[in-house]
Amino acid sequence: MSSKINTGNYFEDFKIGQKIIHPLPRTITDGDVSLYIAFTGSRFALHSSDVLAQEFGYEKKPLDDLLMFHLTFGKSVQDISLNAIANLGYAEVSFPNPVFVGDTVRLETQIIGLKENSNGKSGVVYVHSIGYNQNGLEVLNLKRWVMVHKRNKGEMSGINEVPTFAPTTPIAKEVNIPVAKNIDTNATGGSFFFEDYEVGERLNHIEGITVDDSDHTLATKLYQNNAKVHFNDHMMKSTPMGERLMYGGHVISMARTISFNGLQNAQWIYAINAGSHCNPTYAGDTIYAYSEVLEKIELEGRSDIGLLRLRTVALKNETPQAIESAKGEDGKYLPNVVLDLDYTVVIPTKK
Amino acid sequence: MSSKINTGNYFEDFKIGQKIIHPLPRTITDGDVSLYIAFTGSRFALHSSDVLAQEFGYEKKPLDDLLMFHLTFGKSVQDISLNAIANLGYAEVSFPNPVFVGDTVRLETQIIGLKENSNGKSGVVYVHSIGYNQNGLEVLNLKRWVMVHKRNKGEMSGINEVPTFAPTTPIAKEVNIPVAKNIDTNATGGSFFFEDYEVGERLNHIEGITVDDSDHTLATKLYQNNAKVHFNDHMMKSTPMGERLMYGGHVISMARTISFNGLQNAQWIYAINAGSHCNPTYAGDTIYAYSEVLEKIELEGRSDIGLLRLRTVALKNETPQAIESAKGEDGKYLPNVVLDLDYTVVIPTKK
Amino acid sequence: MSSKINTGNYFEDFKIGQKIIHPLPRTITDGDVSLYIAFTGSRFALHSSDVLAQEFGYEKKPLDDLLMFHLTFGKSVQDISLNAIANLGYAEVSFPNPVFVGDTVRLETQIIGLKENSNGKSGVVYVHSIGYNQNGLEVLNLKRWVMVHKRNKGEMSGINEVPTFAPTTPIAKEVNIPVAKNIDTNATGGSFFFEDYEVGERLNHIEGITVDDSDHTLATKLYQNNAKVHFNDHMMKSTPMGERLMYGGHVISMARTISFNGLQNAQWIYAINAGSHCNPTYAGDTIYAYSEVLEKIELEGRSDIGLLRLRTVALKNETPQAIESAKGEDGKYLPNVVLDLDYTVVIPTKK
Repeated sequence: MSSKINTGNYFEDFKIGQKIIHPLPRTITDGDVSLYIAFTGSRFALHSSDVLAQEFGYEKKPLDDLLMFHLTFGKSVQDISLNAIANLGYAEVSFPNPVFVGDTVRLETQIIGLKENSNGKSGVVYVHSIGYNQNGLEVLNLKRWVMVHKRNKGEMSGINEVPTFAPTTPIAKEVNIPVAKNIDTNATGGSFFFEDYEVGERLNHIEGITVDDSDHTLATKLYQNNAKVHFNDHMMKSTPMGERLMYGGHVISMARTISFNGLQNAQWIYAINAGSHCNPTYAGDTIYAYSEVLEKIELEGRSDIGLLRLRTVALKNETPQAIESAKGEDGKYLPNVVLDLDYTVVIPTKK
Repeated sequence: MSSKINTGNYFEDFKIGQKIIHPLPRTITDGDVSLYIAFTGSRFALHSSDVLAQEFGYEKKPLDDLLMFHLTFGKSVQDISLNAIANLGYAEVSFPNPVFVGDTVRLETQIIGLKENSNGKSGVVYVHSIGYNQNGLEVLNLKRWVMVHKRNKGEMSGINEVPTFAPTTPIAKEVNIPVAKNIDTNATGGSFFFEDYEVGERLNHIEGITVDDSDHTLATKLYQNNAKVHFNDHMMKSTPMGERLMYGGHVISMARTISFNGLQNAQWIYAINAGSHCNPTYAGDTIYAYSEVLEKIELEGRSDIGLLRLRTVALKNETPQAIESAKGEDGKYLPNVVLDLDYTVVIPTKK
Repeated sequence: MSSKINTGNYFEDFKIGQKIIHPLPRTITDGDVSLYIAFTGSRFALHSSDVLAQEFGYEKKPLDDLLMFHLTFGKSVQDISLNAIANLGYAEVSFPNPVFVGDTVRLETQIIGLKENSNGKSGVVYVHSIGYNQNGLEVLNLKRWVMVHKRNKGEMSGINEVPTFAPTTPIAKEVNIPVAKNIDTNATGGSFFFEDYEVGERLNHIEGITVDDSDHTLATKLYQNNAKVHFNDHMMKSTPMGERLMYGGHVISMARTISFNGLQNAQWIYAINAGSHCNPTYAGDTIYAYSEVLEKIELEGRSDIGLLRLRTVALKNETPQAIESAKGEDGKYLPNVVLDLDYTVVIPTKK
């Protein structure tokens, strides 16, 4: 193998405190935004209408938080997870500043923990990544951990430094959301606000959307995420999966899109507290979702908006009506559960 | 089912005179335009070249009328046709003003007729929808009727108020088309003008284009049209169709694209007089089309352009050469006929 | 067949010296650029970040040369190759000036050679095509030859005028590439420069990307390339191929994208010297590639950049590690070799 070929980092290549500047800054365009709507069918109006965005106090429509996440996060794959066995988790994900078409985003990562697995074959790498726009403003802040192959299987280092994570993303003192001039429910498509939701409430979203090969591979290529498992069917045929695996981020986007019907006014994601890709998703699967309200959070000094901490569970090929709980009696996720996402959304109050 | 979930309107939910403001205003971008070309392969040059558009008297390229139609019309699905059994017809569709990238379009609908079906299970809803741009100018005006499920099957109301429609969309006194500075046939790809076409003439377009799952589902998601039949393969498997149904509007767009070869200079659609989706279209079908000239209409005060009333018939998996007529001896559409569209195009004269 | 239908040119329709102005000038947008990234997953940073492009001395990100090639070249199909049996070769392809979003490109072609085949059924047409932007600047210059059906099989004309081509595209005295202000290898993703490459060196690129039906047909429709073999599955089923053939240009783009890992700083294509589509590629094939350095060329007066003449070989469903040579002992291409491309890239020096 030529030394010019980047074969990705292995467990031993990471050091605690190490900083990685990921390549491929990306200028976001209207083309990216249209493609995201085509991939997901997302109907959150704040992200598709400049007129509505202006009523919400923005100069023009801000990017859907998840699109920005994918475009920024995708750049870390070649350095962090090219040799990953699994994305194990996310924590403390936040979206500190809005991103607009024309902005250029980039990503930097610091290694914050390393834990060798006892099998000697792999280890867990804990990272803290920050996305910036062209002015150096933070637009994404996240921690995640991935299981990565070791280069030299069998040689034990005994490293075991595991960071601790906040159970939910801390709420900033000032939430960077403009005060809306007007909430036109005819335009947003929903008439329910912060006050209308109750802790413990469950929303069975009625839509199911089938994802095909080109849907998820075009999306993942748009994000310049080059993890082989999503693209190389020839290679995947000789694995137990037998075919290309859908990018987990696409499943998150589909679940969020499907949650529109019931959460129409929750147009921003404030934070992702925790997320688990419970089972693999493949082309041809139909994604469904249900959401539970976990917590209602009032924001100091802001009577116009509040936060809802939600749990959205995505299912494949099964309607939410058909299952009561994401986990069976044995405490394990049911085979058709593909995502368990704990996140916090911003939603206007009735004022 | 949570009351927060919009399960769509049923026949009993509509009242004559009722006005519905559809949510999701949409700011149209260059991304939408590129995607439309990718979905259809459309080659009408007015919509893909600013230089040519300026020769035609526009400041910049206007949107393809059908793209604007889909982006605007798609918003009505969640209020009008989420529980539709079938889209029965269109009438008096017109495109009063051009739309450009950067414009924000929205849609309003008035219920103009209701007819309960004698089976007690469903009824027909007649609507008049108007699309507006951000300045309140009309960009789309259409009537359509859809068969919708009743909420309470069996309870008869006896309602039977059916509006009448003009057999063809009335021609406005002033057609909002600039006078072209120059018609560069080297650029439009066609050398035939208004004078060259004859009533009764038939054009067998030679191209056939196969539509795949991602083609039609990405397009329909881009339009934020959320009719379940187009997206949910899991649900469709238990219906007689057995798979996702292609959005009828995508079939119209494919037929229009295929009609380019023979109608290269007919770059605008003035009106859709009537349209029928004769048979369902599914992924994997190859669309062909032929066109007949039904009428030639001269416009008062405009010697530079004329109107051709056309009938374009789209076929699946059969070339236009193979069939003489869209209907068999029994007066029914042949099984491979998927669209019968009566519409009016604008075409320059030789001057 | 109506005389209004363009059935394409046959061998007898071409005359040496004949000039064809291809229709459909195209204004390039951000939507086209995003779609190209989605189709290919291209990661060359110069074409996806305005910030990086400015460091390279551009006002904003220039178009990927291959995207410009496809959007311009696609227009020639309806005049040159609608009745083509095969695209036989390319020569002397160059990209004299950069193209940016907002530019409008068009194409003109002169017939420079004609050679009737001895079977009386077909002939080879040699063309010289030049692409221009809206200011008349050359953006593409290429020669190619295609085998085209004769209209009247059997009638021999005996024409045999074959032009000669330079073995490699001549290097212009002044290469239209700005002097970079800064090469940020953290942003480009690669740390190897002109000096680091050696003639004879081989790079086995590690990524493989599977191409699906919607991937290649959406791309080819975006380019308004209307060659039937790429789109009409119904027609192709009755040919020995049995299905739609992938546009050869898409294979070139996939090979170039895959070559990123190992050639990260070679962000421009200066020329395509020769290219051969050795075997057909179909949906479902996984593309791999390897590259060989054929030549290193220093540019007079430019110490900041140099040229690498490369040979990139694309494979289907076989890793580059698995094959030593693109051709077997019989001198014929191996069945899994789909592209043999001889081209020249620009790469910064270490200065």
